Amino acid sequence: MLLSQLIGERYREKPVEASMASHIFMLRGGYMRQVASGIYSLLPPAKRITTKIEAIIRDEMDSIGGQEVLFPVVMPAELWKESGRYESVGSELLRMKDRTGHDMLLGMTHEEASVHMARSEATSYTRFPFMIYQIQTKFRDEPRSRGGLIRVREFTMKDAYSFHTSQEDLARYYDVCHKAYERIFARTGLPGIVSVKSDTGMMGGKIAHEFMLLSDSGEDSLVICPHCGFSANVEASPVKCEHVSRESRPTEKVLTPHCKTIDELCALLNTTPDRTAKACVFAVEGRRKPIVVFIRGDYEVNEAKLRQKVGADVFPLTDYSDTDICFGFIGPVGFTSDADVYFDSTLEGENDMICGANEENYHFTGVDFNSDLAGEFSDLAKARTGDACPVCGKAADIKRGIEMGNIFQLGTKYSASMGYTYTDADGKARTPIMGCYGIGVGRLLAGICEEHHDDYGPIWPISVAPWQIHICALGGRKDPIIDETAKKLYEELGKKYEVIFDDRGAAAGVSFADADLLGVPLRIVVGKGLTKDGTVEIAARDKSFKLNVPVENVASAVEDCIEKLWEGLR
Amino acid sequence: MLLSQLIGERYREKPVEASMASHIFMLRGGYMRQVASGIYSLLPPAKRITTKIEAIIRDEMDSIGGQEVLFPVVMPAELWKESGRYESVGSELLRMKDRTGHDMLLGMTHEEASVHMARSEATSYTRFPFMIYQIQTKFRDEPRSRGGLIRVREFTMKDAYSFHTSQEDLARYYDVCHKAYERIFARTGLPGIVSVKSDTGMMGGKIAHEFMLLSDSGEDSLVICPHCGFSANVEASPVKCEHVSRESRPTEKVLTPHCKTIDELCALLNTTPDRTAKACVFAVEGRRKPIVVFIRGDYEVNEAKLRQKVGADVFPLTDYSDTDICFGFIGPVGFTSDADVYFDSTLEGENDMICGANEENYHFTGVDFNSDLAGEFSDLAKARTGDACPVCGKAADIKRGIEMGNIFQLGTKYSASMGYTYTDADGKARTPIMGCYGIGVGRLLAGICEEHHDDYGPIWPISVAPWQIHICALGGRKDPIIDETAKKLYEELGKKYEVIFDDRGAAAGVSFADADLLGVPLRIVVGKGLTKDGTVEIAARDKSFKLNVPVENVASAVEDCIEKLWEGLR
Repeated sequence: MLLSQLIGERYREKPVEASMASHIFMLRGGYMRQVASGIYSLLPPAKRITTKIEAIIRDEMDSIGGQEVLFPVVMPAELWKESGRYESVGSELLRMKDRTGHDMLLGMTHEEASVHMARSEATSYTRFPFMIYQIQTKFRDEPRSRGGLIRVREFTMKDAYSFHTSQEDLARYYDVCHKAYERIFARTGLPGIVSVKSDTGMMGGKIAHEFMLLSDSGEDSLVICPHCGFSANVEASPVKCEHVSRESRPTEKVLTPHCKTIDELCALLNTTPDRTAKACVFAVEGRRKPIVVFIRGDYEVNEAKLRQKVGADVFPLTDYSDTDICFGFIGPVGFTSDADVYFDSTLEGENDMICGANEENYHFTGVDFNSDLAGEFSDLAKARTGDACPVCGKAADIKRGIEMGNIFQLGTKYSASMGYTYTDADGKARTPIMGCYGIGVGRLLAGICEEHHDDYGPIWPISVAPWQIHICALGGRKDPIIDETAKKLYEELGKKYEVIFDDRGAAAGVSFADADLLGVPLRIVVGKGLTKDGTVEIAARDKSFKLNVPVENVASAVEDCIEKLWEGLR
Repeated sequence: MLLSQLIGERYREKPVEASMASHIFMLRGGYMRQVASGIYSLLPPAKRITTKIEAIIRDEMDSIGGQEVLFPVVMPAELWKESGRYESVGSELLRMKDRTGHDMLLGMTHEEASVHMARSEATSYTRFPFMIYQIQTKFRDEPRSRGGLIRVREFTMKDAYSFHTSQEDLARYYDVCHKAYERIFARTGLPGIVSVKSDTGMMGGKIAHEFMLLSDSGEDSLVICPHCGFSANVEASPVKCEHVSRESRPTEKVLTPHCKTIDELCALLNTTPDRTAKACVFAVEGRRKPIVVFIRGDYEVNEAKLRQKVGADVFPLTDYSDTDICFGFIGPVGFTSDADVYFDSTLEGENDMICGANEENYHFTGVDFNSDLAGEFSDLAKARTGDACPVCGKAADIKRGIEMGNIFQLGTKYSASMGYTYTDADGKARTPIMGCYGIGVGRLLAGICEEHHDDYGPIWPISVAPWQIHICALGGRKDPIIDETAKKLYEELGKKYEVIFDDRGAAAGVSFADADLLGVPLRIVVGKGLTKDGTVEIAARDKSFKLNVPVENVASAVEDCIEKLWEGLR
C-alpha cells in the first residue's frame, strides 16, 4: 500500500470529543469517523486490524470445536417474546416495524437466534455437545456512547453459544472456552487481561466471567486480591466487612437538626460513618412501591446486586413527593412507610448504631442490628479498596478495567423458555443447558490501543497490525537514489510481508508523525544513511531495537526483526 | 469436520415453500433456515461457502486498488436526506426511531456513507482516483421475498464506491471493475455470466450494467442478440419495431360494444393487434394526475423506462373512480381527461390505426400517429423475442436471468447533492464523479447452486466448496478396518485439505444421499473395495471421473484429482 493513496487523513490536534488514548489516536490516525452518536465507519487501517482480530478469534473458536454460522441482524419480535426478553429488556433494544407493520428488532445478542437454529437441528442427545458462533454486526441503543469504540451503539461481535446435556459438561466446556479466550487475548497482545467473576445481568444464568483489561480509563470497578488471586467485578464481589463487637446500649432519640447526610450527622455527634446506618431509596422499574436499603454509613449500595435481588431494574429515587418517607431521617426503628425494606450484611450484628428516627431532625442512637430488627441480611454493598478478600480475608484492591469479553453459564433460561428439548438415551425429552461467550471486536481493537501506545500514537502488536512494515523514504522526491531504493525494498518485502510505503517525499517530521499514528511495528527509514554509508535504519515502533543495516542485508535483518516482534504472540 | 457433529439436519422431502433448485437443496442440505420472511440464518456449510466467496471478492477488489472499510448498518436519516433518498426511496427503506426519537434507517446501499467518509478524507485532487469497498449486512424491506437466498430482505453484500476527477477516468475504472467482476464470477464457477446494460433505477446515473446468470428461473428478462452480442436488460433495451408503411384513410367512429381489450377489438374488426393503439394508464407516486401511455397493441409498456421518463415511481392504475377516463375506450383523438399523455415509439409513423374514441363502446379507425397527433414519441416499450436488435437490426432473443451483481456510473448524483468537493490542480473546487459496484454474496451462493446441481443436490465448484473432500466410511461401525482406514485418511488428508468425514457408519444410501446434498467436489468411499482388493473409490461429485485407487496411493491420486477440479477456477 502506498501511503499517498491510503484513505484516511491524519492530523495533530487532539480531538475535543475524545479523552481516551484509543479514541484520540484512532481519530487522529484516520482509523474511524463518527457517522452518528455511537455509530462509526471504519477506515482501512482499522478494518485491516479488525480483520486480523477476527481471524485470531475464528482460529481459536474453531480449535475448540466451534462451527461458524450467521444469524440475522434484524429479527422478528416473536423470537424475543418466546424468551421473554422482548418485554424484559429496556430501550437499549431497538424495536421497529417493517413495511407490513410487523414488530422487528435489531439483535444485540443472539441467544434466541441460536436456540431457534439449534432446536430444529439438534434434537437427539447424540448431537451434543456442540458450539455455534458468528461474527456479526450488533446494535445496542446505549443511552451514553463514549470512548470511541469502547462503548458504541453499533458494533461487531463474536458471539458463541454452546449446548450441553449436563451442568458438568457445560462447566467443562466453559473452562475450555475460558482458556481459548486467554489465548485470543494473549495473541492479540493483551496477555495481562484478567478474568473476573461477574454479574449475569439480563443474560440470566448463575456463573459468569468478564475478561478485563486493567486500565485507569475503564468504567468497571474490580476487586482484585493480590494475596490469593481472587478477582471479581465489584458488582459480583461479596463484601465481608470488619465488625467491631460492641455492647448494646439503650436506644435514645436525639435531636439532629438539618443533619440529612452521614457527614453532617457524624460531625454533630462526633462519630464515624461506620457507627451509622444510612438508608438508600430506589425506584423499581414497573413497580409503584419504592425500595429502602439500610446499609452501614461507610458503604454504598451496589445496584447490580440489588437488581439481582429484586429481579427488576432499579434506579436511585430522586423524587420523594409520592411517598411518605422522611427523607434524610429514615431509619429501621418505627419505619412505617409503604416500601420494601432490605438490610445489607454490613449491618449484621452491629450494636449501638445511629440511624434516622423517621421524624424530621431526629435520629436514634443505640440501635442494634440483629435479626429481630432486620429479619434477614443480604449482600448488597459495593466493595471498597482494603476490604477483606472474600476468599482469603486479606485486604483486596479495587482496580478499574475495560470489559473485553464475557462468558456465561446460562443454564436453561433460553432453552426452557423457548421450548427446546432433545431426546436423551432413554427416549425422554430433556432441556439442553447453554453457555454463551462474547467478544466485542471493535472494543478489543480499542483495548489493544489503550494498552499499546505512547505519546505519539498506537504501537500495534504485529499479530494485529494493519501492516507489518512501514517504509519511510525521506526526501525521496529530491533524491532519486533514496526513492528508487525505497521503492525496490517496498516491492521486495511486499512479496512476503504487508508493507506500507510512505512515497510522498514528505519531510522527516511529517513522515515520522504519520508513521507513529499508523503504529506499524517495524519501520524502515531510507534516508541520509543510504547516501552516507549505504545503510538504512530498521527500528521497532515500540523502541525495543533500532539498527543500521547495509541495504543489501535488509531482507535477512527484517526477517530476524519480524521474528522478534512475534515473540509471545503466537 | 466429522459429519456426525455437523450442525444442520438434512432431509429428503421437497420443502413445500421452495421451487428453485438452490432454495430446495439449501433447505434440504441444512445450509440455511428461515427466521422471518426473507430473513435467514446460515448454517455451517453455507457460511463456509460465503466465506470463500467473500475471500475471492476481496482478492479481486484489492487487486484493482480497492481499500476495504466498514460502514454502519444503522445510519441517521440526515445522511439520506442530504442525498434526497430519504424521501425518494419507498418503503423498502426500513426507517425507525432510536431511543431518543431520532430518525434512523437500515442501509440498503452505502452511497451516502461512502460520500460521508470520502468528503472528509479526500479533498485534494492528488488523492484521486480511489475506491473503497465493504462486505457488510444490508437490509431491503422487499414486499415479496422469494427463492430462498435469491430475493431476501437481509443480505450480505459487497459494495464498492470509486471516486474520480473526470468522466474519462470513471469510464476507464468502470471497465477495470467490469473485468474484475468477470474474474470473480469465473473463479466462483460462473464463467458464463453475461453483463447486460441496465436501467440505473433509484441509484441515478447514466450507464449501468448487470451481471446476469442465465436461468429459466430468473426474474429478469434480457435482450440478447445472437448475431452481434448486444445484451441488455429488457428494462434498458431500446425497442425498434418494424413498421409497415400504410396509406392514410379517413377517420371513422365505429361501434365496438363491450370491446374493452385488444383481443376483443381485433376479433370484432377482424384485424391484428399491430393495427391498434392501446392506452396503458399509470398512477405516479406522489402525484394526483395519472399517466396515459399510448402504445401499439402488440407491445407492453416497460415500467422501468416509464419510471425513468417520468422521474418517479409508477404503478398500473387499478381504480378509475377518481378520473374521468373512459376505461377500455381511451384514445388520443379527442382525449380531454386530466392526465399526462405519452406516445410510445412503436406508434411513430403508423397510419390507419384503430384506437379508443373516449366514449363507451366506440373506437376510431383510420387514425394516423404523426407528430401532429403525438407531439413527440418516446421509447417506452418492452422488447419481445424476435424484435430487431437495437445494434445490428437482426432478430434478438429474450432470455431470463438472475442478477448476480451490478455496476453503475453514478456521475455526481451523490457527491453534488451531499456537497462533496475537492480542490483541483488550479485550486478550484470541483465535484468528484462516482461509480458504484455491488455483488450480493448470498445471491451468488444461490446462483452457483442454480448453475451447479443435479437431481440430488449441489455440485460446488472447488473454489467455493464448503469442504474439498468428503470421506464416506461404509459400514464402518461393523468393520473396524474400514473405520480405521477412513479415519487415517481423514487425518492425513486433513493436514492439507478441508475434509468432512462421514463417521456415522450409516448405510450407503444414507451416506451418499447426504454427500450429494453437501455437494463436496471430491468424494472418497472406503467400503467393500478395501477388504476385497485394498482399494478405495475416488469420484468427482460432478461425475467427471471415478477411479479405484490402492489405499497407499490415495494421497497422490487426490492431489491429481484436486488439481483437475481446480481447472478454470483460478
